[in-house]
Amino acid sequence: MQLFFAAASPYVRKVLVLAHERGLADSITLVPAATSPVKRDEAIVPHNPLGKIPALVTDDGMALFDSRVICEYLDTLPGGPTLIPAGEARWPALTLQALADGLLDAALLARYETFLRPEPLRWPDWLDGQLLKINTALDQLEARWMPHLGGPLDIGVVATACALGYLDFRFADMGWRASRPALAGWYAAFAERPSMRATAPG
Amino acid sequence: MQLFFAAASPYVRKVLVLAHERGLADSITLVPAATSPVKRDEAIVPHNPLGKIPALVTDDGMALFDSRVICEYLDTLPGGPTLIPAGEARWPALTLQALADGLLDAALLARYETFLRPEPLRWPDWLDGQLLKINTALDQLEARWMPHLGGPLDIGVVATACALGYLDFRFADMGWRASRPALAGWYAAFAERPSMRATAPG
Repeated sequence: MQLFFAAASPYVRKVLVLAHERGLADSITLVPAATSPVKRDEAIVPHNPLGKIPALVTDDGMALFDSRVICEYLDTLPGGPTLIPAGEARWPALTLQALADGLLDAALLARYETFLRPEPLRWPDWLDGQLLKINTALDQLEARWMPHLGGPLDIGVVATACALGYLDFRFADMGWRASRPALAGWYAAFAERPSMRATAPG
Repeated sequence: MQLFFAAASPYVRKVLVLAHERGLADSITLVPAATSPVKRDEAIVPHNPLGKIPALVTDDGMALFDSRVICEYLDTLPGGPTLIPAGEARWPALTLQALADGLLDAALLARYETFLRPEPLRWPDWLDGQLLKINTALDQLEARWMPHLGGPLDIGVVATACALGYLDFRFADMGWRASRPALAGWYAAFAERPSMRATAPG
């Protein structure tokens, strides 16, 4: 399989952490891609017309995107324990993934607003709106999701770890740990997993 | 079930079209919400810390989001034929949904850039980048996905129809049909389904 990839992308990291946890990482060839909302990487476009990563080309030649679809596909391949549960456990796992992905969507938009957009064209209300999403999501992780994060590994847990890793990578000054001690403690341990260490950005 | 909803949201529409197609619409109570990236609706936040719609509160009291998770949940309830296939048919259905959702993500960002952001702060490169995603996605729908769109109804087909409906609603001057006659012909027929007529925006 070929995965269009950038080391800084938290959505790519989610795919790779799942692949490592399931013992599939060696079957994935990484294809470096350099894409941004204002300058796309033309090599990706035949496989994903949105020009985004991750995109996966399977051994059968299927082009799959986005990260959720790729994760679900990889979870069906033979390997270690699956990360996307069936039955009643499916809904909290998928909703937690959506929470973490949504936190990341807001973080990416906040980064584009502050690092990509020319300074005179930045809009404080937009940035504040994205930061409010991030902080409210973090507050809910601390208040409601700690029992889930401390339970069996699933795609929601992986997505949450990748989201927190991205905040450390790109928003190191945000101080997200200050008012979320339980989440900070959980992440400190989770970040030591081999799958997380093997995929750290930067 | 309670669904936080706005008639103009294409992601809400995707959920509702699926609900209508499966005969579940009468079991959903719509809760009007008014949210934007710069002014959230506080009533949503306890159920979705991202402040986004759709969000579903199930009869068991679970709060589910985002639209993909809600669609998958509704697809497991007793009702008409399911729209998210198992087996090999799953991957094209989910990737087409991701393509349509990605087209919509770009369309929403383009709309925020042109209608929400104060005029002096708009960045043409950003708008151009989002429009390029939309147009490339439309081109690929025309070139590659017509056999799928003409096949059995699935979540990818529903998502595509909702994306095209949003372009007609908010980007009526775009003229997306001009160079995509097959897609235009398919959509003209699909838009007449009762599920689409019952959920038309505006």
